[in-house]
This record gives sequence, structure tokens and C-alpha cells, in this order.
Amino acid sequence: MKQILVLPGDGIGPEIMAEAVKVLNLANDKYSLDFELSFDDLGGAAIDRYGVPLADETLARARAADAILLGAVGGPKWDSIDPAIRPERGLLKIRSQLGLFGNLRPALLYPQLAEASSLKPEIVAGLDILIVRELTGGIYFGQPRESKVLENGERMAYDTLPYSESEIRRIAKVGFDMARVRGKKLCSVDKANVLASSQLWRAVVEEVAKDYPDVELSHMYVDNAAMQLVRAPKQFDVMVTDNMFGDILSDEASMLTGSIGMLPSASLDADNKGMYEPCHGSAPDIAGQGIANPLATILSVSMMLRYSFGQVAAADAIEKAVSLVLDQGLRTGDIWSEGKTKVGTSAMGDAVVEAL
Amino acid sequence: MKQILVLPGDGIGPEIMAEAVKVLNLANDKYSLDFELSFDDLGGAAIDRYGVPLADETLARARAADAILLGAVGGPKWDSIDPAIRPERGLLKIRSQLGLFGNLRPALLYPQLAEASSLKPEIVAGLDILIVRELTGGIYFGQPRESKVLENGERMAYDTLPYSESEIRRIAKVGFDMARVRGKKLCSVDKANVLASSQLWRAVVEEVAKDYPDVELSHMYVDNAAMQLVRAPKQFDVMVTDNMFGDILSDEASMLTGSIGMLPSASLDADNKGMYEPCHGSAPDIAGQGIANPLATILSVSMMLRYSFGQVAAADAIEKAVSLVLDQGLRTGDIWSEGKTKVGTSAMGDAVVEAL
Ligand SMILES: CC(C)[C@H](C(=O)O)[C@@H](O)C(=O)O
Ligand SMILES: CC(C)[C@H](C(=O)O)[C@@H](O)C(=O)O
Repeated sequence: MKQILVLPGDGIGPEIMAEAVKVLNLANDKYSLDFELSFDDLGGAAIDRYGVPLADETLARARAADAILLGAVGGPKWDSIDPAIRPERGLLKIRSQLGLFGNLRPALLYPQLAEASSLKPEIVAGLDILIVRELTGGIYFGQPRESKVLENGERMAYDTLPYSESEIRRIAKVGFDMARVRGKKLCSVDKANVLASSQLWRAVVEEVAKDYPDVELSHMYVDNAAMQLVRAPKQFDVMVTDNMFGDILSDEASMLTGSIGMLPSASLDADNKGMYEPCHGSAPDIAGQGIANPLATILSVSMMLRYSFGQVAAADAIEKAVSLVLDQGLRTGDIWSEGKTKVGTSAMGDAVVEAL
Repeated sequence: MKQILVLPGDGIGPEIMAEAVKVLNLANDKYSLDFELSFDDLGGAAIDRYGVPLADETLARARAADAILLGAVGGPKWDSIDPAIRPERGLLKIRSQLGLFGNLRPALLYPQLAEASSLKPEIVAGLDILIVRELTGGIYFGQPRESKVLENGERMAYDTLPYSESEIRRIAKVGFDMARVRGKKLCSVDKANVLASSQLWRAVVEEVAKDYPDVELSHMYVDNAAMQLVRAPKQFDVMVTDNMFGDILSDEASMLTGSIGMLPSASLDADNKGMYEPCHGSAPDIAGQGIANPLATILSVSMMLRYSFGQVAAADAIEKAVSLVLDQGLRTGDIWSEGKTKVGTSAMGDAVVEAL
């Protein structure tokens, strides 16, 4: 028996999660996965229920679970509360407390949705990049960080960007391991011409590379990487980078596909226990309308089956089912184009269940 | 008499600067600008000549000058030397020592070059963004920064990202001032949901906004900004952001145009004294071949006339001359397309001189 903790979160979170759960339940039966689902709150929903964005009991449940499925967190309702207990804090805390340092963010262009990209077809056709982002270190969690008033009465604030050898080594390994089973090309992104932490990053990545002679390693400055993603994104296979650069570059890369509503993500610990969530946010503007795209969350279920449970057949089947509903011309509003059939969140979920 | 210090730099720097100087000399005569030019080295060229990427005497000359025109710095020749005296260090030092905190990086799509963009024409047609980047603070210069060995034998390194109220205030003002004379829209980019420095950034920008009721201010997280630049870049007029985010976003934005060989930049101090340089790098791979595009450097001359000397007529005339040579179908290799006339660096410079 495997325990899956489901955290629907805020905004469109509950709607898209309902569809993902339908798919997960079917896969559970069909492939005898022996999963048991339990539900709890994270983010704004947790603030409303527990007064904090991640309650201790939720964290305990997350620790005990074998995998976590997350919708999305945040929304205007909680924008004006104390920054220390905003919805995002719950997300950052669960990542950090569970040691989910390995964030996998694929930027994959579905051929059926090629025209949704703002880039020219020839630039993005067949795009398939995997961004490996360090998720529990760097400037997101570095201490000290402070906001203070100087003697002259002026305010100032600072953050710290630290990386240790072991933090860099373990994420570099994830990058190389992923590259090894994909296109065998790893691009490590840093700002080694300016940052001390990046100089160490580059040195350690070079050391790890010795164990992966079959993977072609390159280094790129982050500003150039942001540029190359726009100019010629297909030059990349796997990119590995730090927490902040990964935040920026993975969002940029996902938008190259034009359909961020399709992209799942995984955040893994050292034992491949993971939290799985769509790359998109909680989209409060369309919450409750039944029009959100559930496919990224459904594909997050597939990633969970693949990475945390090694259930390759079930994972493949879900991906194929998603591809099939796209072939059938079904589209939620965010990926709809002339001539296609516009459907709502639950109709899309049902179609995937049907295809599966 | 105004003193202009010319620093051709490395790689294609000397070639493109030769053309910019032709144009500057002509403008000098034609508009009786009373400029006196002197020349020195920065970056790799300075390492070869002085042993350091920015010699004290060069810095003194830069201080004494009324404006500085820079080519580009860096190249593989100096890649293996001590990081503390690499070519880029000269660039960072001159920015910091001269207090050039206000970096203006336009991302402008020339209608004649619309097809060079990797984005669809309807997404980028008419694109005209100005990125205002803080250039002398933040994580580029923050102390402490260190690389060390921990007691357990592990290496670690860290950088510090500090911002003071006054640093934020003065760059925010540049952003608002620019927005006021352009589309009256300013988007401030930060990561206030994670960073202490960004929270102060956002608070101070809000304060400065009170003096600019005619400018519409918005805030955006840096990850979303990286995404929106790909999705719908024309939503932006002026963007203001910190040193590191500005490095990344300005390169991303410039690449949206597809012709980074066309984009100039300005780095200004509190009195609008400035250093002007192309956005592109030193392109060592094509150095010495006479094929580099000199237009970004020529347009940097125009920016210099506009921002440091208020010579609007001369600045406009240079921009018009550049547009004219594009209309004539002249193109260097980087912006060439079928049916256009391919020309080299000096032929392009001559054409601009002719048009002027
Ligand atoms: C919500 C925010 C704190 C988070 C991050 O910056 O990591 C988000 O942007 C993400 O990428 O998952
Ligand atoms: C060369 C490098 C240090 C520099 C920077 O990061 O500022 C460059 O990328 C730039 O944007 O001018």
C-alpha cells in the first residue's frame, strides 16, 4: 500500500486536481497500483483552515506519504497578509523540509499544439528540453537575510546566495543522470564571471562530469542562456542550474511551448520521493469557472508514476491518453484554436479517463 | 570642448569602433559639437598592455572624460587567467568606480529586420521596450562574498545581494523618468515573494511612484517577466529591475528582436555622464574578418549625443541614417536575408557616413 497525499491548493487547484484524481483512481485500479489517497490543504487554503500556509500536521502527513500531488497555491485573497505566512511560504517550506532539491521541469512542445507558441514553427517544432533546477538551496533559503535601518536612517535589505559542494554535486548528478537517458547533452547555467557561488558551481559540475564521459557537458552564462532559449531553443537537451536561475529559465522555457497549461513538474528528494505539480499557477482570474486546463496536473500524475514508483507502463498510458484527446481535437480555452472543440475542465478530465 | 574617451576593447571591438568613430567625427564637424577624442584600452587589450583589465591611468582618463564610448571586452585568449583580473573585471570596475548605476537597454525591432526575429511577426512587430537595469549594486558587488572550506572539509561559496533605499530610489526615478517621455508605463520586476531585498525594492518603487502620478506602475515577479517577454512582449514599455535580473531580462528582450547587432546601450551616472556600448559581445569567432555589424556601436554614439550632451538633432540624424542604409537593403552577415545586399563592417560604416 502506497500513500499519496493530495494537496489541491488554491484558485483553479481544486478543479484541476479533481480531474487528476479521476485519472489516478482509474490507473490505480487498472494497474493494481495499491495507492491510498488522502487529502489536505496547502497555501491559502491552509491559511484559511489552519492559520498558516503549511500546518505541522500537514507536514507530518507529507513526510509519511510516499508521494505528494499538488495543485497550485496563492491568490489575491491572501495578498495583503504578513509576508511571513503568505501561501508561497507553505510551498517553500514543504520543498525545504522534505529535502526536495531536484526539480524537473520539462518544456515539451506537443505537435498538436505547435501553433500555440509565440515563436516561429521552425524554431520550436519538436522542442523537448528538461530543466533541472536546484530547489532547496541558494538565495531562496540562504542565511543571513535581513531588512534593517542603517545608522543614517536609511533602510537596506539583503539576501545571501550560498552553495556548498554537496548541494551542487547532488543536483549536478540529477542533471547528468537525466541527460544520460535523454539526448546525452547537459548545459550547466551559471554566472561564473561575476558570482563566487557560480565559480564553485562550475568547478563541482566539472568534477561530477568525470563520472559521465558519455554526456557532453557545456557551460553557459545565465544571460546568454536566456537569450539562446529565445534564439535557438532546440540546441538544448538538459539544462541544470541553481534555484533562482532555474526559476527564471524554466518559466521562460515553458512559455516557448505556448501551452504552459500542459507542463507538469517533479520535485524529488535523494530517494526519488517526490512532490508533483503543474508548472502553471493558481490562475485566480478563472478559478471556479470550470474552464481551467487539467492536463498539466494529469501529466504530473504520470510523472509521479514514472519517477517515484517506476510504473512506466501506467505513466506511458496516461501520456498516450493525453495525446489522444489532443488528437481528437479537444481543447480547453487556454490551448484552443480555430476548428478545435472547446471543452471545460471536467469534460477534458473525462476524455482522458475515457482514452485511458 | 568635450572629451570623449574611446575604448575599443577586444574581439570585434576595434573594427566596429573604427566605424563609430567615422560617424562621430562627421557629426562632430557637421553639428559643431566641439568633441575631442582620446583612445585607451579596457578588458583583454588592457591586460596585454597594462597587466590589468582597467589600469589606474585609464580610470583617471575615464573620470576626466565627459563621456565614454566602449566597443566590447573579453575573449578566449584571457579565459584561463586569474578570475580576479579577467577582462570582465575591467568592465565591472569602470561601471562601479564611475557610479554608472543607470543602465538603459532598449529592445527595439527595426521594421526592416522584422523577419530576423525567432518570434512570429504579429508578436514582435513594432516592439519597443526599454529595460532600465541597476548597474552598480546588488549581487554583482555585494559584500561579503567568499569561497571557503568548511570544517568538515567541504567547499562552499556565497554571494550577498544587498540594496539600500537610496540605490533603489535613484534607479526607480530613472525608470519613471524614461516612462514619462515614452509610453507612460513602468513595470518594476522583482522577486518580492522570496527575497528580502526585493521586498524593499517594491516598497521604495511604490514610494517613488507618488511623484509620478502620470506613469502607470505595475509589479511583476522575475519568473513571470521572463515568461511574458516570450508570450506578449508588446505589453511592456519601460521595465526597471535590479542588476542580476536586468542582466538576464535585457539579454532575453534584446534577442526578441533577432538582431542584437543593432542594439546600443547607455550606462549613466547621477549627472547623465555615461558610458555607451553595444549590447552584443566581443564575438571573438568573427574578429578580424571585417564582417561584424557596426550599427549597434554607431547607435551608441547616437545615444551618447542624446543622453550625455542633449544633442537631439545630431542623435536623430544618426538614427535616421542607420534606418536609411537598412532601407537601401544593406546588411552585414548577422542581419542578412535573401534578396538583401551583404556588406562588410567598413562598407556599412561608410554607408552610414554617406547617409548622414
Ligand atoms: C511561488 C514561488 C515562490 C515559486 C518559486 O519561485 O519557486 C514559483 O515561482 C515556482 O517556480 O514554483
Ligand atoms: C560581462 C558581464 C560581466 C556583463 C554583466 O553581467 O553585466 C555583461 O553580461 C553585460 O550584461 O554587460
